[in-house]
Amino acid sequence: MSTSLTNEAIYVASRPTGIPTAENFRTDTHPVPEVRQGEILVHNEWLSVEPAMRGWLADANNYSSVGVGEVMQSLCVGIVIASKADEFSVGDRLMGWFGWQHYAVVKPSAVVQKITSSDIRPSLYLGVLGLNGATAATALETIGAPKPGETVVVSTAAGGVGSCVGQLAKALGCRTVGLTSTPEKVKVCYEEFGYDHVINYKTDDIDAALKAACPQGIDIYFDNTAGRISDSVVQHLAPGARVIVCGTASIAKWDPVPMGPRVERILLTRRALMQGFILFDHMDTYASYIGKLEALVRANKLTCREHVTQGLHTAMGAIEELYRGENLGKRLIRL
Amino acid sequence: MSTSLTNEAIYVASRPTGIPTAENFRTDTHPVPEVRQGEILVHNEWLSVEPAMRGWLADANNYSSVGVGEVMQSLCVGIVIASKADEFSVGDRLMGWFGWQHYAVVKPSAVVQKITSSDIRPSLYLGVLGLNGATAATALETIGAPKPGETVVVSTAAGGVGSCVGQLAKALGCRTVGLTSTPEKVKVCYEEFGYDHVINYKTDDIDAALKAACPQGIDIYFDNTAGRISDSVVQHLAPGARVIVCGTASIAKWDPVPMGPRVERILLTRRALMQGFILFDHMDTYASYIGKLEALVRANKLTCREHVTQGLHTAMGAIEELYRGENLGKRLIRL
Repeated sequence: MSTSLTNEAIYVASRPTGIPTAENFRTDTHPVPEVRQGEILVHNEWLSVEPAMRGWLADANNYSSVGVGEVMQSLCVGIVIASKADEFSVGDRLMGWFGWQHYAVVKPSAVVQKITSSDIRPSLYLGVLGLNGATAATALETIGAPKPGETVVVSTAAGGVGSCVGQLAKALGCRTVGLTSTPEKVKVCYEEFGYDHVINYKTDDIDAALKAACPQGIDIYFDNTAGRISDSVVQHLAPGARVIVCGTASIAKWDPVPMGPRVERILLTRRALMQGFILFDHMDTYASYIGKLEALVRANKLTCREHVTQGLHTAMGAIEELYRGENLGKRLIRL
Repeated sequence: MSTSLTNEAIYVASRPTGIPTAENFRTDTHPVPEVRQGEILVHNEWLSVEPAMRGWLADANNYSSVGVGEVMQSLCVGIVIASKADEFSVGDRLMGWFGWQHYAVVKPSAVVQKITSSDIRPSLYLGVLGLNGATAATALETIGAPKPGETVVVSTAAGGVGSCVGQLAKALGCRTVGLTSTPEKVKVCYEEFGYDHVINYKTDDIDAALKAACPQGIDIYFDNTAGRISDSVVQHLAPGARVIVCGTASIAKWDPVPMGPRVERILLTRRALMQGFILFDHMDTYASYIGKLEALVRANKLTCREHVTQGLHTAMGAIEELYRGENLGKRLIRL
């Protein structure tokens, strides 16, 4: 099967030294290659932008990776427009690793999930029903193990993962405290994500605000930022606290490793745990968590803000916008 | 029951600002008080000196405590010489919280364990069969969860807790790598505690030595030091590593909190766990762990070096000696 379609794609032009910027990418066009036996052709509708992309592009301490000259790796939602694989048929809507491009010829192993629900908008499968939701739910359950009445603090409270953590913890009967960066995000955290307390870490006295919001200490800290915010939060950990290290958005460069207050004494005296979490280790339970999250979406107990821009080229600068905190909700590109 | 015995005891004279020195204590004598209903009179034979005593004496970030003007808190082994409590009889040998003094009038709740074995020397109940052994065994199992073939690194490898960790890990089929501070201790680590590799952190290039000793990375790091040694060790953590934070001996002062390289990125990319451990949270399983350790001692699979000085007054400077690394093995005072 040959096609006469022309593909436009975003390629990695250079490795960033810190946060990836538009200059690290370039666009190019080429004919869509032939679909060979065992492959499918997907027409992308939605592309995702993730904070984790910084790590995928980094040289140092890198757990996934995408190389210079390759199409930028990304989760996408798209429609199968040609199939030479038994697993999928023309018309199927899929979420998977299709890259920042209009058309992708891939093997079925690139597919994370077939989207069969007709009552849920497809873009949610890149947010609360995708990597973000699965990350929030899996990490909160496997490391956090929240119990009703416990106090859960979330950094990047209004973000894709954070807003999901806040709502899941609330649904489990926890007190939720969110940290975010603008009055607009504070408002959304209260009104849409149901946080019990929201702290603006740019304008509030973080220590005083945490002390007031968490009089019994913090049982679970879901950390997407590291840095100055976390330095304050860990001072307020309760005995037996669990710190989920899910992201380090506030630290622009890890080479050389930046200095911060040592955590050993707090971990020791509070008998606290700090543990790193990467969703890719937990793909065996992915579908089961997404199923639980779909039920919460249908019950209107889980909502998601989306920050959408139109057009492939808008992806190129989107990672640095994320790190500047300019998005409000899950960052998506609509093609 | 009244006694005409005179007791000599070591009192806390002042709170140390860092590591406790002899100047923070004073000795005094007083008549042994009357033994009231429900109490026992213990004649101490052995006193213990623990790194943890720094924490008990500290104001800040303190999880146990002993106040100025009180007899210095300590585990001891002694003989019951008078009893008005049903639980214990004259002649019983006990390990418990009897303090740095010759005679203690205490309630049965101060007793940790009655020593019934006649084939094991009693001082071991302050070492491998006491706090040290229970700490090593409980923390290694509950946080470390070692599997045969895994690589276990121990800081203070020749110390009371560390030497026990090394031997327990070895008995479980792990590769053991110890960090210690003198050629004499290196020799003891190889010959008595059976480490596979021993690193002298004062003279060796720690990073190069760890890289050579742990080609597959470090699965478990049992940390009694924090600081510079740990900063090197964590660079070599394997994916899924567990760091047991059991002590912070290399850090003299935590107020203000000293700075060090941030660990969040390593924890994240290695999906590693760091967790504080304090034995007092695990006293419900104490007897069961001691029973397992007694079996290892009887089978000659668990040995312990003791560093003994004679006379109550030698306790006063013993904590600072521990922190200067002058002891070789479990630090004890013989009365």
